[in-house]
Amino acid sequence: MLRREDERLLGGHGQFVADHAAGAHHVVFVRSSEPHAAITRIDAAAATRMPGVVGVFTAADLGLRGVAIPSLTTPDPQFTAATGCVLAEQRLPILASDRVHYVGQPIAVVVAEDRYCAEDASEAVEVDYEALPAVTDPVAALEPGSPVLFDHLDGNEAARLRYSFGDPERAFAAAAHVVTGTYRMNRHGAVPLECRGVLAHFDPRRRRVELTTSTQVPHMVRNAICAVTGWSPQDIKVSVPDVGGGFGTKANVYGEEILLALLARRTGHRVIWVEDRQEHLVASAQGRDQIHRTRLAFDSEGHILAWADDFVVDIGAGSLWVAGIIANTAIHLLGPYRIPAADISGRAALTNKTLVAQYRGAGRPEATFALERSLDAAAAQLGLSTDEIRRRNLLTDADLPYARPIPYRDGVPISYDGRDYRACLESVLDSLPRDEMTRCAATHPQYRIGYGLSCYLEATGRGPHETARIRLLPDGRFEVTAGAASAGQGHETVFAQVAAEALAVPMEQVCYVPGDTERLPDGVGTFASRSAILAGSAVHKAAGELGALATGRAARLAGADESDVQYADGRFHVAAEHSVSWSELARAALGGAPGGGALDVTAVYRVPTVTWTMGAHAVIVGVHPRTGIVKVLRYAVSHEGGREINPKIVEGQIIGGVAQGVGGALFEQWRYSPSGQPQSTTFAAYHLPLSTDMPRVRVRHLHVDTPCNPIGVRGAGESGTIAVYSAVACAVDDAVGGGLHVNCTPISTDEVFRALEAS
Amino acid sequence: MLRREDERLLGGHGQFVADHAAGAHHVVFVRSSEPHAAITRIDAAAATRMPGVVGVFTAADLGLRGVAIPSLTTPDPQFTAATGCVLAEQRLPILASDRVHYVGQPIAVVVAEDRYCAEDASEAVEVDYEALPAVTDPVAALEPGSPVLFDHLDGNEAARLRYSFGDPERAFAAAAHVVTGTYRMNRHGAVPLECRGVLAHFDPRRRRVELTTSTQVPHMVRNAICAVTGWSPQDIKVSVPDVGGGFGTKANVYGEEILLALLARRTGHRVIWVEDRQEHLVASAQGRDQIHRTRLAFDSEGHILAWADDFVVDIGAGSLWVAGIIANTAIHLLGPYRIPAADISGRAALTNKTLVAQYRGAGRPEATFALERSLDAAAAQLGLSTDEIRRRNLLTDADLPYARPIPYRDGVPISYDGRDYRACLESVLDSLPRDEMTRCAATHPQYRIGYGLSCYLEATGRGPHETARIRLLPDGRFEVTAGAASAGQGHETVFAQVAAEALAVPMEQVCYVPGDTERLPDGVGTFASRSAILAGSAVHKAAGELGALATGRAARLAGADESDVQYADGRFHVAAEHSVSWSELARAALGGAPGGGALDVTAVYRVPTVTWTMGAHAVIVGVHPRTGIVKVLRYAVSHEGGREINPKIVEGQIIGGVAQGVGGALFEQWRYSPSGQPQSTTFAAYHLPLSTDMPRVRVRHLHVDTPCNPIGVRGAGESGTIAVYSAVACAVDDAVGGGLHVNCTPISTDEVFRALEAS
Repeated sequence: MLRREDERLLGGHGQFVADHAAGAHHVVFVRSSEPHAAITRIDAAAATRMPGVVGVFTAADLGLRGVAIPSLTTPDPQFTAATGCVLAEQRLPILASDRVHYVGQPIAVVVAEDRYCAEDASEAVEVDYEALPAVTDPVAALEPGSPVLFDHLDGNEAARLRYSFGDPERAFAAAAHVVTGTYRMNRHGAVPLECRGVLAHFDPRRRRVELTTSTQVPHMVRNAICAVTGWSPQDIKVSVPDVGGGFGTKANVYGEEILLALLARRTGHRVIWVEDRQEHLVASAQGRDQIHRTRLAFDSEGHILAWADDFVVDIGAGSLWVAGIIANTAIHLLGPYRIPAADISGRAALTNKTLVAQYRGAGRPEATFALERSLDAAAAQLGLSTDEIRRRNLLTDADLPYARPIPYRDGVPISYDGRDYRACLESVLDSLPRDEMTRCAATHPQYRIGYGLSCYLEATGRGPHETARIRLLPDGRFEVTAGAASAGQGHETVFAQVAAEALAVPMEQVCYVPGDTERLPDGVGTFASRSAILAGSAVHKAAGELGALATGRAARLAGADESDVQYADGRFHVAAEHSVSWSELARAALGGAPGGGALDVTAVYRVPTVTWTMGAHAVIVGVHPRTGIVKVLRYAVSHEGGREINPKIVEGQIIGGVAQGVGGALFEQWRYSPSGQPQSTTFAAYHLPLSTDMPRVRVRHLHVDTPCNPIGVRGAGESGTIAVYSAVACAVDDAVGGGLHVNCTPISTDEVFRALEAS
Repeated sequence: MLRREDERLLGGHGQFVADHAAGAHHVVFVRSSEPHAAITRIDAAAATRMPGVVGVFTAADLGLRGVAIPSLTTPDPQFTAATGCVLAEQRLPILASDRVHYVGQPIAVVVAEDRYCAEDASEAVEVDYEALPAVTDPVAALEPGSPVLFDHLDGNEAARLRYSFGDPERAFAAAAHVVTGTYRMNRHGAVPLECRGVLAHFDPRRRRVELTTSTQVPHMVRNAICAVTGWSPQDIKVSVPDVGGGFGTKANVYGEEILLALLARRTGHRVIWVEDRQEHLVASAQGRDQIHRTRLAFDSEGHILAWADDFVVDIGAGSLWVAGIIANTAIHLLGPYRIPAADISGRAALTNKTLVAQYRGAGRPEATFALERSLDAAAAQLGLSTDEIRRRNLLTDADLPYARPIPYRDGVPISYDGRDYRACLESVLDSLPRDEMTRCAATHPQYRIGYGLSCYLEATGRGPHETARIRLLPDGRFEVTAGAASAGQGHETVFAQVAAEALAVPMEQVCYVPGDTERLPDGVGTFASRSAILAGSAVHKAAGELGALATGRAARLAGADESDVQYADGRFHVAAEHSVSWSELARAALGGAPGGGALDVTAVYRVPTVTWTMGAHAVIVGVHPRTGIVKVLRYAVSHEGGREINPKIVEGQIIGGVAQGVGGALFEQWRYSPSGQPQSTTFAAYHLPLSTDMPRVRVRHLHVDTPCNPIGVRGAGESGTIAVYSAVACAVDDAVGGGLHVNCTPISTDEVFRALEAS
């Protein structure tokens, strides 16, 4: 089943936010040029008088002084109780008025008749600053005596969390080997093909603002706007057009979205803001940026005895998802291994940098990097191969399902529902045998060749719920909608497939339409490898409920008892010779038959807890001895996935994930000067991987059904990314040989070159 | 209850088609300059090459050669059987390719980046014509030997109809008095504040064309587009924005609407056509244009014995509503009088003029003019006053309900459901006493003063059905939609009122949203004084069905038996101490409670037959002796209306109707040269009434409930217009005194002046 959206998207017929700019006034934001400063004066008088300018608005003008972006999520109280997770109240303003906390923070907003006027006017808005000392090192930020970013807080700690089980200190004391390390994954992120964008207009007939935004979470955007404005959910409709990639950075509610809603109401005119690339690189939420200090204890055979990790996340000036990031990191630090004792603690630090939020993996790649690199360090110390040390510690069919003595974020005790993680490792070793290094060496004589491995385990399909709606159309076809917004993942195809199967009707009879907050008043969104599981199950549930409702109707229409009606092959069979079709039901519903009403069902699917996707990555790299440049030559992924609704889409997700992982492992970094000035503000400084940086990826899908949802699927949206960093680092060490132990990404060509020189 | 839409519409915040032009390519039509001609060549090559031109399309380019605009309605077969109504097949092409039939007929369509380019290019399209003899006189058009407009027909007769009852010829032979006459109502029409306009774009995500058009009949537009293109109803969504007046001219499906849908699909770009005023005056459907030859027989006391009328309607080159116009005229020729015998026949003639369609009244004003003027002629002959002759013939409480021995258009035998038509006449005589002429003479000494009267009877609320939908919103409010599109009549207020009353909830909890073919897949439209009756009853019915559905839900929610749940005061009472609110039901529906689904009901209300609104108009005019100019000084309307959902809106409809009647009686006419060239192509030649031409109108509403619909309403949208022509003519005769008998509208100042000179 090919993707239905591809005719449109690949044919250039997609309609993104910026394609709806016609007739709109353009919005440009005046953003802070200072990392940390008090604002002493904002003067928009000259800008306001410029030709074409409709208005310039500060927080004071919009009644937003001191109004913060509402928080999106709070952690589950049961998890909070188990881990003692503590969150500081974040108060990042929608528009800064007294103080700025990062370069790029919005201070004022210019509305003008076109973008040119708006850009010119934004430069004419005068902002006077009084510099404050910038906090840029997250570890130092948490020390006593550090300058503090927010007056309502005692320090810069935004969150902390700790859990332990077993008796880690005793295990460390008794261990044959302990490896320690410090691992840093630098700041990088989503950088989707399409930047962000918001369009809003006030519909005077329905007396509501209609907002179109490139978000992954339309319902959260609506809720945040209602929370700030006091509007009822009926006063605002949020919809999502075609979106060119999200990867987490569009799973945030941004001040820009709230402001555009207010401006549409305030000016009575259609308004649009289309983020430019420089804005995106400075002011959209970034990812990763973690430092882990680790200790891993082994017995003499190489079996893990205990694991300790103390990590710090640099969340910049704020992260609405901080609880999610810190919890995701902490939980995924345990990996797919037998670990009898652990002591995990994490803290999030506020610094004078751009916001950090979830980015594909969202804590999992950082955790995986720390654990897998520690395993590689131990393998070297113990004289084992990188596959052997994993083989000795991976959970097998004898272990699974495997319970951890800690709860997942939803408070439900963790239980890995996989089949055989060691078999998955063997699969990837079979898919990419080590002896392919010889062939690589022959075809790439200028490189030193290395082989790397990494495993990962990913909780997928986080709840609490998702919604879907199916309605019978007047011509007997079905329209399906779900609360999870698409950023290009294939929702139109996949959810139509789920509905067609559940309804036992041909795929042609089902169309998927994007959800919005009117069509579907409740919804959660697309993130955390959850859409197929949550929204897919909601579609499945809606189909079941629609079938039950329709059976009653068919019975009434046929004058039969409901229990005598059998649904099969897309028809309601009343007796051997008589059946009722969906088309007949549709006509009867239209005709106002008694006991009628639309055949239109909205279902809410609540997932009991997550389901776990495990996988193993293998990679062969070439390292260039004269430059230290790393080239990925071969890549293989084997993973324990669930039922594949659409195998092509699952494979595409894995491959795309690997590509983003390669970018993060080798190239991508948002660099800041010590004083907090962003230095990666164009693609000349922020290096994305090119298609020539990517080998073909061999994907093996090891089907392991899951009992966690009615359609038997596991999430796969992030799993391609998680293990890339550690697998590539492992391979680079192997290529260099001996002297190198990569502990930081992006992998520094300097460091590689120096290690090669030394070896 | 003030109109909810007025804050928007009076505040200048309405959003009409042209307000959505941003980003669209502009469409301009190349229209025929000839009334009747063969097209020998269309050359668009030069136009196509002009800067900014996207394309120029002829019928051949669009695969539309010989494709006609689909017919909208066919008369009810039972009425056809009773009257022998015969219709010719009309084949007016969407785009003319071989032959043109009126000036203004679309021949080609230009799409360009802006309106300026499109207009320039349209002038560069070369069309060569070979003139054919133009047919402009409708009576001559029906004679043998007339040139014939359409090759597939034998002559120019588009429709004919005849009925008779009693023994008219015998009655004429035995009569004490017979008055004969010829009455002509010239061509004039709606001329709404907003011209027509159509916007279309192709939504690649939903693979459908979305068409926004200033129509009164969105579902008919959709059906016509589907009929021409072969698209399914899911391939096209038709919606209606704010519309600045319709009055019947927007109750047609136009070729322009079909073409814009095709062009959106063809070009893949948003396209808009906004009719300019000159186009509107030449190419939008016009109205009236009838000639009646009458005979009215009386006994010596002035009682009607028989009535014969042979009329011809000039429908121009076509009328999709010809059956409606001819049938409306024939049925309303009987008025509110006792008429024991009648012989009515009508024919519609095709001529080389612009289309004629329904215009406020749609046959009723023409019929009323013929009958009421005949009564006035008889009053003069018999020496009775104009009120006395009506008093002697009007149906009274003793007669009503009164059956006619003919069926209405729906095949149901006619039965007038009024209370006392003579009492209504007395009411208007009381409202505007004749002795006010003395006061008028005193205040207007320069005028000769006259008093005029006219009665009318109107079938209102024509079926067959209308649809409405009510859905419970997540916050416990209700959203109401109906199939009848608003052109400014107050649907947002009135249908919300009907729903609030039926649901027993406060008005604030109900919002009305305009229907479209997605929100409401079935619907009929707004015309023929039907919206309050049909759509209002459908809303009422939907509310009842929603209540019944919700009662079951409330019972399940409370764990009670359905029969124990009582709905009162907006709550479902389960027991003395326990009740369930709509908000709770909304939350339960969202939460996916078992047996759920949306609380969303679409109801179809089928009306058994029409209900009849009778009224009487009285007017005092001043006639200026030196110029023949007629000035309306006083106006009164009394009418037997039904329950008034919103009295201010009913009164506004009556007053607006009178204003349009005054325009038709005194000023408005589309004149054509004998060769068929339109001569009223600007407002300098087509004279609309000004606010200074209108006196205050005294409206008396005589409440007579009707059993024909559950909310007890009668239609009033057209009734203000119907009797104005004959009442004003009657008053002008009275003012001139003796020598004048007005038999044509608009009333000629020349003729009045000559009669004054002669008297």
